[in-house]
Amino acid sequence: MKIPIVRNILEANDRIAQENRKFFDKNDITVLNLMSSPGAGKTSLLERTIDALKKDIRIGVIEGDIQSSHDAERIARKGIPAVQINTGGACHLDGNMIRETFSEFRFDELDLLIVENVGNLVCPAEFKMGEDFKIMILSITEGDDKPTKYPLMFRESRVLLVNKIDLLPYVDCSIEKIKKDALHINPHLIIFEISCKTGEGIQTWTDWLKGEVKLNKNTW
Amino acid sequence: MKIPIVRNILEANDRIAQENRKFFDKNDITVLNLMSSPGAGKTSLLERTIDALKKDIRIGVIEGDIQSSHDAERIARKGIPAVQINTGGACHLDGNMIRETFSEFRFDELDLLIVENVGNLVCPAEFKMGEDFKIMILSITEGDDKPTKYPLMFRESRVLLVNKIDLLPYVDCSIEKIKKDALHINPHLIIFEISCKTGEGIQTWTDWLKGEVKLNKNTW
Repeated sequence: MKIPIVRNILEANDRIAQENRKFFDKNDITVLNLMSSPGAGKTSLLERTIDALKKDIRIGVIEGDIQSSHDAERIARKGIPAVQINTGGACHLDGNMIRETFSEFRFDELDLLIVENVGNLVCPAEFKMGEDFKIMILSITEGDDKPTKYPLMFRESRVLLVNKIDLLPYVDCSIEKIKKDALHINPHLIIFEISCKTGEGIQTWTDWLKGEVKLNKNTW
Repeated sequence: MKIPIVRNILEANDRIAQENRKFFDKNDITVLNLMSSPGAGKTSLLERTIDALKKDIRIGVIEGDIQSSHDAERIARKGIPAVQINTGGACHLDGNMIRETFSEFRFDELDLLIVENVGNLVCPAEFKMGEDFKIMILSITEGDDKPTKYPLMFRESRVLLVNKIDLLPYVDCSIEKIKKDALHINPHLIIFEISCKTGEGIQTWTDWLKGEVKLNKNTW
């Protein structure tokens, strides 16, 4: 009984996501869908990424949370346009929620829109929002069994950021196992090892991201 | 359009959960629904709890995962009856999935059934399965903003286990803030601070749990 209901929701969402995609293309915006478990470091990654790129790239952020606006406030302190979506109870963002934010941005003044999804390693990967690609963070404190246990997000993502590598001496986690299992699920996955706390690895990530934003601009 | 659909699913689930509850009562089983983000330490807590209680209490475990059977294998190595539920894509366990496992247990040989839910700080809290009560784990590596950002699970749980306290020197996290915010959401919440790695705090938790299982037995 449940499966057909879910399918209808997903199909309806796909149509809205396609409309969003057309809108983003028309406005020359690169859009990232950023996903992870709660507390893996999505907002910290945004802060680091904004600091590294904001002089070259005009960035906007959509923050998705069940409730509260802490994350949007953290981003706004960087001088970046930020919109908070409160989902009420929903455990993921969908295409319609993204569309609801359109009137809040000046898209002619943006190059890159990063959408921070609700913290959840499962459901967000199922719902398109019209993004160019999905990226995910896995904190090493979550353990090295996560690719095998939650494969969908690893399969759907173009980039995996392995975060909190500063804690490696204190936790039982093999980054090699994470990488091997994640690449088994998705051989095209691009992997960066980072610490949002110390800044290690951040520049490699932001250099790559900068190239992607420019690449998209040139293609259009 | 979506809200009525979710309500129907939840109502249908509640009916099945009530039937499960009657079945557990008839068989004198105490049932816990164990929830957390991915990698917060649910299976490690089970291993510690089983080691501490198995000489006094007959324990069974249901392991919920999107896919794989690693966790059930870890539990089975403790000599405990364990059943793995693979949800396919679903991000939570529901009453019907639990009912499907009934034929796999000898309930006349069990006192306590612990159900490890899918790793997800959002959806599992919405679906009853006929449990006596819900318990949740929060790892300090997830950050001290989690009660405010994901209040439902804190509201629905009877017990909060704050795990990985051995990592406190290396992360920016205030356990006092977690406790204060969690108790603001749910003043009846019983909180234990533990490290499944070092064993710190485990006995306080298992002593309490042992009392709960006996208490239920005496009541029936």
